[in-house]
Amino acid sequence: MSSIYLDHNATTSLDGRVLEAMLPWMSEQSGNPTSRHVFGRTARSAIEHARAQVAEACGAYTSQVVFTASGTEANNFAVKGITANQEATQILYSAIEHPCISRPAAALKQHGFKSQAIAVNGQGKLNVEHLQLLLSKPANLVSVMLANNETGVIQDIAEIAELVKRSGAFMHTDAVQGLGKLALSFTDLNVHAMTVSSHKIHGPQGAAALILDKRVDIQPLLHGGGQEKGLRSGTENVVAIVGFGMACELAVANLSSFTSHTKLLRDQFEQGLKSLDVTIFSNKVSRIPNTSFFAVNGIEGETLVMALDRKGFAVASGSACSSDSTEPSHVLLAMGVSEDLARGAVRVSFGGHNTAQQVSNLLDTLKNEILRLKQLTGIAA
Amino acid sequence: MSSIYLDHNATTSLDGRVLEAMLPWMSEQSGNPTSRHVFGRTARSAIEHARAQVAEACGAYTSQVVFTASGTEANNFAVKGITANQEATQILYSAIEHPCISRPAAALKQHGFKSQAIAVNGQGKLNVEHLQLLLSKPANLVSVMLANNETGVIQDIAEIAELVKRSGAFMHTDAVQGLGKLALSFTDLNVHAMTVSSHKIHGPQGAAALILDKRVDIQPLLHGGGQEKGLRSGTENVVAIVGFGMACELAVANLSSFTSHTKLLRDQFEQGLKSLDVTIFSNKVSRIPNTSFFAVNGIEGETLVMALDRKGFAVASGSACSSDSTEPSHVLLAMGVSEDLARGAVRVSFGGHNTAQQVSNLLDTLKNEILRLKQLTGIAA
Repeated sequence: MSSIYLDHNATTSLDGRVLEAMLPWMSEQSGNPTSRHVFGRTARSAIEHARAQVAEACGAYTSQVVFTASGTEANNFAVKGITANQEATQILYSAIEHPCISRPAAALKQHGFKSQAIAVNGQGKLNVEHLQLLLSKPANLVSVMLANNETGVIQDIAEIAELVKRSGAFMHTDAVQGLGKLALSFTDLNVHAMTVSSHKIHGPQGAAALILDKRVDIQPLLHGGGQEKGLRSGTENVVAIVGFGMACELAVANLSSFTSHTKLLRDQFEQGLKSLDVTIFSNKVSRIPNTSFFAVNGIEGETLVMALDRKGFAVASGSACSSDSTEPSHVLLAMGVSEDLARGAVRVSFGGHNTAQQVSNLLDTLKNEILRLKQLTGIAA
Repeated sequence: MSSIYLDHNATTSLDGRVLEAMLPWMSEQSGNPTSRHVFGRTARSAIEHARAQVAEACGAYTSQVVFTASGTEANNFAVKGITANQEATQILYSAIEHPCISRPAAALKQHGFKSQAIAVNGQGKLNVEHLQLLLSKPANLVSVMLANNETGVIQDIAEIAELVKRSGAFMHTDAVQGLGKLALSFTDLNVHAMTVSSHKIHGPQGAAALILDKRVDIQPLLHGGGQEKGLRSGTENVVAIVGFGMACELAVANLSSFTSHTKLLRDQFEQGLKSLDVTIFSNKVSRIPNTSFFAVNGIEGETLVMALDRKGFAVASGSACSSDSTEPSHVLLAMGVSEDLARGAVRVSFGGHNTAQQVSNLLDTLKNEILRLKQLTGIAA
């Protein structure tokens, strides 16, 4: 495919060095890491090596890394696991969380938990006063994402965690879009649990982790053979975990070049957008460097995404997980954006391999397509 | 590693043709299957192709395949998901189930469910009278595995399912050890749900499926983006699913050669065992062809496994998932085997690449090691 990939917040390609680390585990006999024989022991060491790489990238201790198969699983584990042994009160999450936080929270209604979204302001930052108001009643868990997958907005997690901890609730952050794009420190963020995932940082799918303060009384989501010290059963996905470890190592090594490179591309892109009639979301607050989220008045984001796809540019109309839905982005609605404008949203998320030339081509194509679509719909003057 | 791998019920190596099918998805830019652009659409087609391959191998419709990340997840999904919308009564499972059935069942005590093991006889076959007795009270779910991971014993699932359905309960079978070793037909087994997994059939880790009669009112275990028609959220693991599909296709094609080849090896092995003072478990009933489970009187299975490992043979003292535990096999205890003898258990599970020469060498080594260990412990005459 000769298309230019500009959807790195949805998923990323596997780094060649990650693949290289994984290949021996796919070409030779490998063991079940729980087995006692040499194949099992070798697999076990590989997992523990990867655990150290993941811990290092997260500013955490190796003992705090609980491997899961996906960010979605880690988020479900956090929400359901942390609340399982508590007396049901309320679960709070920001109104811009990924559905793999808000939906498990809502599902716990069955067991007596209220779930409640915390408001954000027009730029997509958490409304801390609203959180404080909600915390005047007892809460079981608060989950606020570190960086939003659509807008890229970074929340002040350490400060929020301070408030939450003072209230006696547990604090979780979904840091899936933070890993590899920000210096990440579980310790400094001061949360009880944090989710990270492999396939957003040029690692394989099938590996993620919940970084966990082990003093939290958590119940497993997956019961069985007792892997991960009883916290997450199921044969460990050795190949994916090895790849995740290597991807973490590379993400740390590449962080500053990734940050400066993608920020340059985004600045170039958003500078170019100024000459078009577009609204750029959340550009007045701190964002991860690679993400630009904007809308063209009067053009459906979905239509523009498909038009750009035909011209060889792969961008998104919002998060991949909501692509199936025709609803406007819940993130933008929470920010008070009108439904009409929200329907026009397009997300471009750059990766380390994108180039200034590609951005320039994208801008040209975008200009032409917007003009063409406006003419089609009779909006153009 | 030059060791001979004889632990195929724990995990298997990746088939070269499976790796070949997976490699393009690891070497080129791949998309999130939910994305609308060309990368996403291509990933989506690959998943649907794999779904058809898995369905074919399971004698099921493609619409019945729900992908998960592991057999453990599929089993947890079945137990927790099928019971979630029901009024709590009891969950029944055979006494020889894998812990990823019995432990989620036990965990549901919190929500008012009783869980109860169904007895098996001395050969490891389900005690149908006991099941009937238990079914005289209402039950939510019955789970009986198709083929046991330790003994290899095959249960009469269709007949059991008939009983269970007549009682009004739902019926699940864990067919992880059946796929690739038996002709498998979801329709003929007549169950509501069936678990299969990739890494036991020379496919990659990270892919498995719950084959599901969609008329069952099931709740997701993983809530979020709504993938798998809302039944299992989380970005699909495209690479692993592609590999699982190919592994299923190969498993079907190789079934008869696998069966006859491993049965020959096992017959040769168990013939050889006769000259040693060992007990072979479950050898009077129908077993999957590749599995031999036996015990040497007076020698710890764990000790023998480590001794064989040093001599270059990778075998198991039971299921991989219980290797961490020093408890004797719960499967053997359920069969009425004494704790002492159960502690001596060793499992050899052959694969298609094992040879008669390897079996012959294993028998020689086993003979020597048993002699040596008996001398060490002073048991020999």
